[in-house]
Amino acid sequence: MAHNADKELETKEMATRSLSSAQCQVQNSTYIHKVGVPPKQKFFNEFTSAVKETFFADDPLRHFKDQTKSRKIILGMQAVFPILEWAQSYNLSKFRGDLIAGLTIASLCIPQDIGYSKLANLQPQYGLYSSFVPPLIYAFMGSSRDIAIGPVAVVSLLLGTLLQNEIDPTKNAAEYLRLAFTATFFAGITQAALGFLRLGFLIDFLSHAAVVGFMAGAAITIALQQLKGFLGIKKFTKKTDIISVMHSVFGSAHHGWNWQTILIGATFLAFLLFAKYIGKKNKKLFWVPAIAPLISVVVSTFFVFITHAEKQGVQIVNHIEKGINPVSVNQIYFTGDNLLKGFRIGVVTGVIALTEAVAIGRTFAAMKDYQLDGNKEMVAIGAMNIVGSMTSCYVATGSFSRSAVNYMAGCQTAVSNIVMSFIVFLTLKFITPLFKYTPNAILSSIIISAVIGLIDFKAAILIWKIDKFDFIACMGAFFGVVFASVEIGLLVAVSISFAKILLQVTRPRTAILGRIPMTNVYRNIQQYPEATKVPGVLIVRVDSAIYFSNSNYIKERILRWLTDEEELLKAAYLPKIQFLIVEMSPVIDIDTSGIQALEELHQSLHKRDVQLVLANPGQVVLDKLHTSNFASLIGEDKIFLTVADAVVTCSPKSEDEV
Amino acid sequence: MAHNADKELETKEMATRSLSSAQCQVQNSTYIHKVGVPPKQKFFNEFTSAVKETFFADDPLRHFKDQTKSRKIILGMQAVFPILEWAQSYNLSKFRGDLIAGLTIASLCIPQDIGYSKLANLQPQYGLYSSFVPPLIYAFMGSSRDIAIGPVAVVSLLLGTLLQNEIDPTKNAAEYLRLAFTATFFAGITQAALGFLRLGFLIDFLSHAAVVGFMAGAAITIALQQLKGFLGIKKFTKKTDIISVMHSVFGSAHHGWNWQTILIGATFLAFLLFAKYIGKKNKKLFWVPAIAPLISVVVSTFFVFITHAEKQGVQIVNHIEKGINPVSVNQIYFTGDNLLKGFRIGVVTGVIALTEAVAIGRTFAAMKDYQLDGNKEMVAIGAMNIVGSMTSCYVATGSFSRSAVNYMAGCQTAVSNIVMSFIVFLTLKFITPLFKYTPNAILSSIIISAVIGLIDFKAAILIWKIDKFDFIACMGAFFGVVFASVEIGLLVAVSISFAKILLQVTRPRTAILGRIPMTNVYRNIQQYPEATKVPGVLIVRVDSAIYFSNSNYIKERILRWLTDEEELLKAAYLPKIQFLIVEMSPVIDIDTSGIQALEELHQSLHKRDVQLVLANPGQVVLDKLHTSNFASLIGEDKIFLTVADAVVTCSPKSEDEV
Repeated sequence: MAHNADKELETKEMATRSLSSAQCQVQNSTYIHKVGVPPKQKFFNEFTSAVKETFFADDPLRHFKDQTKSRKIILGMQAVFPILEWAQSYNLSKFRGDLIAGLTIASLCIPQDIGYSKLANLQPQYGLYSSFVPPLIYAFMGSSRDIAIGPVAVVSLLLGTLLQNEIDPTKNAAEYLRLAFTATFFAGITQAALGFLRLGFLIDFLSHAAVVGFMAGAAITIALQQLKGFLGIKKFTKKTDIISVMHSVFGSAHHGWNWQTILIGATFLAFLLFAKYIGKKNKKLFWVPAIAPLISVVVSTFFVFITHAEKQGVQIVNHIEKGINPVSVNQIYFTGDNLLKGFRIGVVTGVIALTEAVAIGRTFAAMKDYQLDGNKEMVAIGAMNIVGSMTSCYVATGSFSRSAVNYMAGCQTAVSNIVMSFIVFLTLKFITPLFKYTPNAILSSIIISAVIGLIDFKAAILIWKIDKFDFIACMGAFFGVVFASVEIGLLVAVSISFAKILLQVTRPRTAILGRIPMTNVYRNIQQYPEATKVPGVLIVRVDSAIYFSNSNYIKERILRWLTDEEELLKAAYLPKIQFLIVEMSPVIDIDTSGIQALEELHQSLHKRDVQLVLANPGQVVLDKLHTSNFASLIGEDKIFLTVADAVVTCSPKSEDEV
Repeated sequence: MAHNADKELETKEMATRSLSSAQCQVQNSTYIHKVGVPPKQKFFNEFTSAVKETFFADDPLRHFKDQTKSRKIILGMQAVFPILEWAQSYNLSKFRGDLIAGLTIASLCIPQDIGYSKLANLQPQYGLYSSFVPPLIYAFMGSSRDIAIGPVAVVSLLLGTLLQNEIDPTKNAAEYLRLAFTATFFAGITQAALGFLRLGFLIDFLSHAAVVGFMAGAAITIALQQLKGFLGIKKFTKKTDIISVMHSVFGSAHHGWNWQTILIGATFLAFLLFAKYIGKKNKKLFWVPAIAPLISVVVSTFFVFITHAEKQGVQIVNHIEKGINPVSVNQIYFTGDNLLKGFRIGVVTGVIALTEAVAIGRTFAAMKDYQLDGNKEMVAIGAMNIVGSMTSCYVATGSFSRSAVNYMAGCQTAVSNIVMSFIVFLTLKFITPLFKYTPNAILSSIIISAVIGLIDFKAAILIWKIDKFDFIACMGAFFGVVFASVEIGLLVAVSISFAKILLQVTRPRTAILGRIPMTNVYRNIQQYPEATKVPGVLIVRVDSAIYFSNSNYIKERILRWLTDEEELLKAAYLPKIQFLIVEMSPVIDIDTSGIQALEELHQSLHKRDVQLVLANPGQVVLDKLHTSNFASLIGEDKIFLTVADAVVTCSPKSEDEV
């Protein structure tokens, strides 16, 4: 059938082309193609197609079409556990890549985990726990091949800040921990629900620009927090804004700083940054910055152990619980006030964690050119956090820095996460006591050198160049995080992102069109200064759907264009405007307020002896113009396929001049 | 200069026309007009023009241009007090119209005011106070000639509901009253601030559809509330939802209803509705429904007075404070917790009151064809409520029913409000004691017959016809108010309105274009089934700005169109797609995420051996394509002025076929 249709198409095509010169003549004088009035769609069809486009835009069930029942079951299992699919073609050469990558990211994640758990005001082992269970779950359910799962700096900081607003982590450590698990549980529920309900598109509302600003702000905040460990300060503010932190730092300058700590910290920070530099210079040496943190930990721990620097005031990790994750399902608050608190915190951290994970997944999928189903990915991440919350983990997600290392180390599948998880398991099982003498300053140095990568100057500059409003959103999020708090920064980012959309809808652009010389094309005279106006006709293009939020503005703006134009013409003793052509191509939709505004416009124009003419209304708009009887109000013959058609019909006067 | 420009324009025009046939030939073969790269605008200019368009779209200072200083001062005074302008041309014949209109609306407003103040849980005199001071202030500052100012049902109900959530009106009457004044003060501040900061457009975010539903819901709720007075029930729920109210009504059916009350109420309700019917049948008898309430009050009061029905359980008004408004500025809470509560309630009621007043002002201004400056109007309404809050008034606004009567009675200027205010003054000064025996049932009947007019079936049906989503918003607001509460209904209405905008931005339409036979025009093949596809070329139109909220969706949707098309072609053994033309006319803006999505699209297409071609990007978009280097990435020669140009250049293959 498609073949026939196409044949017919070609025939038509040729017929059209052979007519070309005649047709052109016709087009310029009298031939006017009728505006298509589409067959009216039933409400139900319209509704289902809108729902499908909103929630199932990617048509997730297309593979299931025309399959046997047993095959459908297999496909369904594979959809939930992608490992069933890719494991079939797994082989030794892939495993070699995954093994190396897994070992590399494990060496990077262990020191980071210990440091990040401090950002969440939790004991070090919880960071390690979160690098053991969630990566395993993800390996079975996730579809990204490059993401490295575990705790990350920003989410740890966000979770810590939100939790300590509710419960004091030092006074009520047990309750605090329970609330952390509750929040993690609901973070997972939120993530899985978003994916399952196919609401994944909601996270797109956090704009790229806002995320860039937020991440940079969070990086600064996290680095500032590290000054506590880095300078060996004992009394430190609980707030995260730059002013409180600087006050704490300089307030304790005379009696609170510990030079031994600073020496150790600074030395190793220099080492880490140098390793980073090497990695950047030569992509093949990516493993240098990847194992530098572990080397720092080993060397510094050994150094403190033999010099007993902890007696000079150098703070050390002291104790990490030995053994793997205890069960924590009984610790989650399923009732009472803390349930609500945990839910609220979980939703916020869950969404942020998801944003990061999905962004990472998409980036690497695009680089290796494979498809990633966003909604399925969310279900996987949600599931891993739900299971995590029951096994003493806090919110885990994809880490950008570790995923990059994973990618560069040649990972092939999610097996690299399994390898990493196994190494963390061994660490928990056997060697945590060895971390006793690890100085806190080292952890701070590791975190500082890690979060620096979150500040993306290049992206910020590009945003400034392309879109100033985006840049405001970016800076708003940045300063919000740095000067107020993580939540405020987030709120600012989301608000500005929304405000931008709303502003565009409220104050859409309008433009005066003119004819481009030697063509029948009408374009914005500001963009094409060579375009010429048609005497007696004003052509206005409206650049947006006409909705309640802008219908009044559009009506008034069009009338103002007309007034301005008429004043000009009057001053030049030129003939009046007789026709106002509204180019409707960009008007993709109209609602009842919009129709009302058009009616008022028609009324006002009628009083001024100007006729309203519409050019190229789209299908939906045309439909509504007809159902509301507006089309018959202005006259069906006042609606044209193109501006050129409208001009030819509407300006007999200019025709006479020729 | 304009003259010259236009001369040039005409010359160009003629040149173009004389070339017409040649040009056409050219256009079909090789002549391609270059896409205009506009002169780069400076950031500052761009920013100021955006600000101007957002906040000063109506160019409010245009009258001040080129005027002497003294003239500017006069104009400034007139801008704040429009009465200075229109008073100059005021005359006796205008006064006659205003006098009759003023007397008519006064007779209507006095019984309504007494009833409405009950909706706000206030004593009857406060309704009368609010019809004395605010109309006077408005007459000096407002620019609508037809609006009738005073308390209205919906705002009274809203204020009453919000206030009693905070303070019990029977137990803490004094505090309740103080909070009412505080809320009124902040309602005024909010209104004036919105106008002064030129943020008037914000009220446009309450869509017409939502307002229709909200008003109808409020009308039902108010009518249900009247069952208390109408049936003579003593114990009545404080809640406003239909279920609680019905429970109250039927729970007291056996012992709480008073037949005398019902008899009086029903008789006069029938009379009022009949008067309404007469007024509707014959527009000249508009005064019949207008004075019917006052007649009802007089007759029923006299009836109760002589029969002493109050001893049979018929509830009466009993006491209305005599004398004009006492000063209440010392009662407003300027500190403490109640300040915040009052502020919050004031903002909500102020915005709703404003929405009603502006809608009324616009409607009548359009009917009489005069200009109304929305922002100036807001300042006037704000000022009248600020002064009102200091003189024992609660939130006043424009009443739709009384404004309609005002209009029909032939009002000419705001003097009719002054006349009404004067009559209310006389009432307060001399005759309030006469209302002692007025039965509450009459007030209920008056309110019921008044609010019925707020249910606009016709509008609801039109909304259903035109836009189903709008209808959902309308019904959401309606059921929210009826089944939950006024606030919930409001919240539902606003949320659905926003959701609609966001959904449109998140899931914009895309369409496949084909060439319309005998033209060079490309249109949606769904709307124009006669349009034919061009072999080897897929033309997709994107119907929205490309923003962070939809950039991923648009990219994936375009790729899916391509996949679908390729599958069709493959099945029919037809040549592959070689060019993907994206028609950008409706793409009015693009942000950094959008550029990124285009880059990814380009990458994916490149892998599939398909070339990306853009047609007719607008000024802003083109600018950004250049600054981001995307234009040079795909090649400047891949950007065309029209789809037709792009097709001619891109499809050498189909050219061969001719």
